[in-house]
Amino acid sequence: MTGTLAGPFLTAPIPIDLPATERVRIAYRRMAAANRPEVWITVRDSTSVLLEAAAIDARVAAGEALPLAGRLIAVKDNIDVAGLPTTAACPEFAFTPDATATAIARLVEAGGIVLGKANLDQFATGLVGVRSPYGAVRCAWDPQRVSGGSSSGSAVAVALGIADIGIGTDTAGSGRVPAAFHGLIGVKATLGLVPTTGVLPACIDYDCVTVFAQELALARQAIGVMVGPDRADPRSRVWPPDVPLAAPSVPRIAVPRPEDLQALEPGYRRAFDVAVADLAASGCRVDTVDISGLLDAARLLYDGAIVAERYSAVGEFLSGRPAGADPTVSAIVLNAGRVAGPAVIDDQDALLRAKAAAGQMLSGFDGLLLPTTTEHPTIAAVRGDPVAINRRLGTFTNFCNLLDMAAVAFPAAPADGAPFGVMMVVPAFHDQVALDLAARFLGQEPGNPLPGNGIEVSVFG
Amino acid sequence: MTGTLAGPFLTAPIPIDLPATERVRIAYRRMAAANRPEVWITVRDSTSVLLEAAAIDARVAAGEALPLAGRLIAVKDNIDVAGLPTTAACPEFAFTPDATATAIARLVEAGGIVLGKANLDQFATGLVGVRSPYGAVRCAWDPQRVSGGSSSGSAVAVALGIADIGIGTDTAGSGRVPAAFHGLIGVKATLGLVPTTGVLPACIDYDCVTVFAQELALARQAIGVMVGPDRADPRSRVWPPDVPLAAPSVPRIAVPRPEDLQALEPGYRRAFDVAVADLAASGCRVDTVDISGLLDAARLLYDGAIVAERYSAVGEFLSGRPAGADPTVSAIVLNAGRVAGPAVIDDQDALLRAKAAAGQMLSGFDGLLLPTTTEHPTIAAVRGDPVAINRRLGTFTNFCNLLDMAAVAFPAAPADGAPFGVMMVVPAFHDQVALDLAARFLGQEPGNPLPGNGIEVSVFG
Repeated sequence: MTGTLAGPFLTAPIPIDLPATERVRIAYRRMAAANRPEVWITVRDSTSVLLEAAAIDARVAAGEALPLAGRLIAVKDNIDVAGLPTTAACPEFAFTPDATATAIARLVEAGGIVLGKANLDQFATGLVGVRSPYGAVRCAWDPQRVSGGSSSGSAVAVALGIADIGIGTDTAGSGRVPAAFHGLIGVKATLGLVPTTGVLPACIDYDCVTVFAQELALARQAIGVMVGPDRADPRSRVWPPDVPLAAPSVPRIAVPRPEDLQALEPGYRRAFDVAVADLAASGCRVDTVDISGLLDAARLLYDGAIVAERYSAVGEFLSGRPAGADPTVSAIVLNAGRVAGPAVIDDQDALLRAKAAAGQMLSGFDGLLLPTTTEHPTIAAVRGDPVAINRRLGTFTNFCNLLDMAAVAFPAAPADGAPFGVMMVVPAFHDQVALDLAARFLGQEPGNPLPGNGIEVSVFG
Repeated sequence: MTGTLAGPFLTAPIPIDLPATERVRIAYRRMAAANRPEVWITVRDSTSVLLEAAAIDARVAAGEALPLAGRLIAVKDNIDVAGLPTTAACPEFAFTPDATATAIARLVEAGGIVLGKANLDQFATGLVGVRSPYGAVRCAWDPQRVSGGSSSGSAVAVALGIADIGIGTDTAGSGRVPAAFHGLIGVKATLGLVPTTGVLPACIDYDCVTVFAQELALARQAIGVMVGPDRADPRSRVWPPDVPLAAPSVPRIAVPRPEDLQALEPGYRRAFDVAVADLAASGCRVDTVDISGLLDAARLLYDGAIVAERYSAVGEFLSGRPAGADPTVSAIVLNAGRVAGPAVIDDQDALLRAKAAAGQMLSGFDGLLLPTTTEHPTIAAVRGDPVAINRRLGTFTNFCNLLDMAAVAFPAAPADGAPFGVMMVVPAFHDQVALDLAARFLGQEPGNPLPGNGIEVSVFG
């Protein structure tokens, strides 16, 4: 895939057959050579990382099976790693946690090695990557353009071949938009499958931990390692017993009507038509559906009352007007404090109805193919218009968590010589269908089913 | 059961072996003789009811299997019946729906006959039965005492032997408290199992349609008829494939610590100890648990931000200050309009955490036995203190829907010569375990499992 669709835009990953110690040394050399200091908020001391890598090499040499042995990880800095500060891209917010987030701890148990904490749109509020006092994160292949956000640093670290796995979060599309801009895979699993213990909430009911990788199989493996129930997370969910494990041999895929695609810039519009044609050519049955209900729901994330969740998360902190607050983020969060309680109830009800309508609209389909985002703006353009462009970028991603859907973002054929990303969107718990469909589109092996099927261990009765 | 525990307080049901027409005639005679006009807001014209009964008799005579043939139903007047006004106990709110609520339509399809629309605490806000301009509903066996509410009329119609099935709703305990005061069965199924299409919301996320009956088997049958997916209800849920169908042979039952029972008046306190002893004597293993987390969660229904749901439902209407508004209800609902959006998010989060904690606390138990309510006040006492007594009455019922639990209320041995009610509380979808445990306690047949197991028909994929 990287050779055909996004290869020119990515630095090839560090070879996986090298010892972990050697991979770490190469990563630090690439980090220095890349000269992208804004990618990181905290880089771990290389000596201690090398010691950790040596220990993993020793365990592998002793015959231990570590599925992610030596895989290098960039962790978005709204996710806790014990001993490293969590800033959420606001210096005054920083604290140093004693415990590592459950999802990251599972990656490390599987042999993964954390390189450091990556920059983000402050408090994970944004899809651009410029809303950070630690610097606007520049696109890996064109420093004039935005990286996408809010998981900006994690995506660029993977695109630059420094990290194998970029861990992000996704509320509005933060784990998918940066994937689209770089030709990466971005997996946003069903809400609750990957625990959010140790993750700073953006919108606590709609936050996911996500994976960026250059290869689908690795992204799938990393998600598989992170999935599983967690008693400390009240939103933790388990696979239902009847979860589908793959798409049928002739999948039926929904695509939007032309009028639903008006937000796309012309090059993206043409590229999406190509992606749909490629999908049909690959043996899928493709049918058009009216996605206006999804697009309406998407607008409720920022323009409705649901934004009150952002005030619940960090509003009190931002009310103190810290110097490092990003002005755009701060305005969004503080305005959210004025939302009325009954309006929250009303919008939650509207979302439930939209979810039911979406389920009926997509009944009989195996997935919905959408463009991931609408355009790839420059940093200057976003600085000149920090809200409207950001809102447009979320046109096709915002509804996903609100309506309890899962999505896999992956590269399609380039648009005007630049990466172009699409998403396979599926209902909750159909994650493996989306991964299977993405693999077929990319001509890759589907990989193993995600683990964790079965019964929760802590139910009452 | 009615003979031993609640018999003296109930008028025996109209014999079921009589033709439906004869049952209807007896019901109207009993209605007149009872002289409790406040029980009903709308009574159907007896001529049309008799025609409907005759049609059912003819279908039964022709061999049709109608599980509820000739069963007479009182419908709480916040639930639509086509052609009859829905008032929610506020005359200015009245409208006449064209469609019957899904739950009632299913009862009628099964041969049930609606007698009329029953009084309630206005907008289903209250546990007392006195908050209605159509009159305070008096307890069936002592007109000085409250009936309980908000499903007041439906419960009294069943206790007086007029209706076989009383249909109520339950948000805070409205389908259980009146059962306790009358020695009735009150079944509050898991949220979403019985559709709420055609039901006026009280708190739209926490409303259930419930059944009162004198016999557990009939209550179970009526619930079974009403359960099932409904595309028009976005909160409709289906049984998971692994739903438990009965309790084990030696059930393990949790009961509260003495300090969790301080809200009980002394007679109720003694009666609850007797109920626990009876449960142990019946072969259950009984263990004490700390239910303070449940009691804390209960207080969030009215004293926290969740009450914003009541403003969403009818706040705009009550803002117009209609003359028929009950002052206590109106004050609660209009105050709820001032709740802040982020406070709703915070309290919803607190409830999710309380739900997770409850699940862990009750892990390994088949059910939790609780007193249904704390005391049986007089109408005069409630009029003198309309909020505090009502709040106390909900001590043990309020948390149930908030924490996604199901409950079956049933009579235990009397307290100081008056009915005393207990509840078997279980997690979502363990309804059949609760019914099974109640049947064992009452020495009745457990009845058939509820129908509707299986896969939803309208899922996407």
